[in-house]
Amino acid sequence: MQRLPRTQNDLRPDVVELAFGEPDPSLLPTDLVTSAAARVVPTLGRGALAYGRRPGPHPLREAVAARITDREGLSVSAHDVYVTAGNSQALDLVLAVFTKPGDLILVESPTYSLALRTIRDHPLRVSAVRHDDGGLDVDDLQAQLERSTGEGRGARLLYTIPTFHNPAGTCLQDARRRRLLELAREHGLLVVEDDVYRELAYDHDAPPSLWTMDPGAPVLRLGSLSKSLAPGLRVGWVNARADLIERLDAAGVLDSGGSMAQFSACVAALVIADGAYDRHVARLRAVYAARRDALVAALREHVPAGRFAVPGGGFFVWLELPADVSATHLLPVAERHGLAFAPGSRFCTDGADTHVRLAFSLYDEDRLAEGARRLGAALADGARRD
Amino acid sequence: MQRLPRTQNDLRPDVVELAFGEPDPSLLPTDLVTSAAARVVPTLGRGALAYGRRPGPHPLREAVAARITDREGLSVSAHDVYVTAGNSQALDLVLAVFTKPGDLILVESPTYSLALRTIRDHPLRVSAVRHDDGGLDVDDLQAQLERSTGEGRGARLLYTIPTFHNPAGTCLQDARRRRLLELAREHGLLVVEDDVYRELAYDHDAPPSLWTMDPGAPVLRLGSLSKSLAPGLRVGWVNARADLIERLDAAGVLDSGGSMAQFSACVAALVIADGAYDRHVARLRAVYAARRDALVAALREHVPAGRFAVPGGGFFVWLELPADVSATHLLPVAERHGLAFAPGSRFCTDGADTHVRLAFSLYDEDRLAEGARRLGAALADGARRD
Repeated sequence: MQRLPRTQNDLRPDVVELAFGEPDPSLLPTDLVTSAAARVVPTLGRGALAYGRRPGPHPLREAVAARITDREGLSVSAHDVYVTAGNSQALDLVLAVFTKPGDLILVESPTYSLALRTIRDHPLRVSAVRHDDGGLDVDDLQAQLERSTGEGRGARLLYTIPTFHNPAGTCLQDARRRRLLELAREHGLLVVEDDVYRELAYDHDAPPSLWTMDPGAPVLRLGSLSKSLAPGLRVGWVNARADLIERLDAAGVLDSGGSMAQFSACVAALVIADGAYDRHVARLRAVYAARRDALVAALREHVPAGRFAVPGGGFFVWLELPADVSATHLLPVAERHGLAFAPGSRFCTDGADTHVRLAFSLYDEDRLAEGARRLGAALADGARRD
Repeated sequence: MQRLPRTQNDLRPDVVELAFGEPDPSLLPTDLVTSAAARVVPTLGRGALAYGRRPGPHPLREAVAARITDREGLSVSAHDVYVTAGNSQALDLVLAVFTKPGDLILVESPTYSLALRTIRDHPLRVSAVRHDDGGLDVDDLQAQLERSTGEGRGARLLYTIPTFHNPAGTCLQDARRRRLLELAREHGLLVVEDDVYRELAYDHDAPPSLWTMDPGAPVLRLGSLSKSLAPGLRVGWVNARADLIERLDAAGVLDSGGSMAQFSACVAALVIADGAYDRHVARLRAVYAARRDALVAALREHVPAGRFAVPGGGFFVWLELPADVSATHLLPVAERHGLAFAPGSRFCTDGADTHVRLAFSLYDEDRLAEGARRLGAALADGARRD
């Protein structure tokens, strides 16, 4: 039988492909997953292959709750964890359940390009909130909330990535987190906190999530195993207060299909429960931190005109190009030098093209350094704005 | 670690629970799945745990295509199979991709209650088409299409279960299938063919699907492994002509998450490819056929006043009550006798309450006969309409 490609995207062997935010397939814990998959039915019974209860298999909900209690300092139970088929599916479901056609949705700009596409697949209006090195600009958020409320069409929902932002690598400052929570409560704004990079913290632990800071606020925290265990399992979860979970749980699609990822979620439960997941995450942190450091050092050497903040976690360096260079124009030049990246326009609601997103997850240090060298060479070739 | 419940729903030991359309957990092929799960990474490589390509893992697409070619007489390739996370998720995605707010959606009445709920979770208008022992009433369909087109608000989509209908057990007559396909082409009506019970045919093979009859028609055929392999895997697929598949493939949620059920779909691919699936399905047909026969015989004995057509496949007997009995009023009486069923009002857009749906999938023959006996006793107690 034909083996599968190792990645979601086609990687050209002669190109340093820094466009894709995928885990390195070499780091996927194949033995842990294979061993757990073989133990699922003996350990959990044949219910692992049946339609599961809508909120997901209890052992995974318990394992995730125990980890949150242990690592994030908020004492929670399985009832606070609702299993999903990964963050992408969870965002899509949340939009379907919590919005009506024409609702105003706020996003950061820049934001995760495919979340933006998912939002735009729904019949919604989208407005961008400013974002800087401190994360979401809460003053701009407040102004927009006040304006939209004044017009009688208050914003329904904010999609935000406060921790190790994609693409910007930022973490929302603590004081801004508090302001955001206050504003959400005050304006009845539902905050969808995409928290997929939390485990991948390289310098110190990730800042507290909005949800753990204020579990009674209107926050849906989306967690995932796609970056830290295996995206192919398609397992994530939602944390939120009980009334929000209840609304999610009332979706007909869940009543029909049951648990969104029953067998995979059982596999994940066994991996987490036996402690192997902790060791795996510790290893990922070390490996990805070294890759980040290598890319950062090589960018400083080869792309001195590029400005960026060193990300404390996640997969991305968000590099600001010299003022006269367009990322989109630079891309074909870079490709000729054997480098690919994601131009900033993909992530910005206004198409701003001042940045490139460089993912450091897929390659080892030497290859990342070579990518930075090629970026420097491409910039030297020039890619002026029109 | 706590074992999982064996079913999605709570089964009371002293009640014959005929309300739930679930496979019998005792019939789930746990060894086949466990063995396949252990072979996924060795056989297919670590790409089975990575983000998969959006259309799903090629080995499953190939295995399903080979089975369609072999069993359904239409020569197709992997490109004609788009893997989903099960039919429920597929229907939800299809509605999101192919409809706009306010669109008119046609359903049969009766129809699958949770599909109806899923449709109603979207901002759509729903209209019911008549349905009788021959399946969907195509004359009524034509009249509705002509009326809605005349009003300038043509129906966008029809959700239908032409083969071993849930709840009615019917198969759409061949001539009606042809009329339906003609009407769909003529009116640009997208037909969503829920084909989840195809494998569970008891008397002779299932009739050809709408999609295999006319693969160029605007039909999305939704296939699934939930009834014939294991619902916990959450694996299904869509068959449709290329332009429809392309529109599905363009959904942002798929670009973001990749293959909707990557690892599970790889497990399924290995089960199907080694021939074990064929043997398993043959066994399911024999077991469920015997259960159908037992329920049918016992109903004839104990509920002579109930009218029903013997279903040629699927999970359900759709029994018409005596004219003066309401299913909803009968239910608490039946519960006192230790029997539960799904009252017809759940499946009918107008709340008609003349039928009960009896699922024969969960119990052995003796227990099903006991269920029929209890239904007869409940009817003898009386549950007159108000």
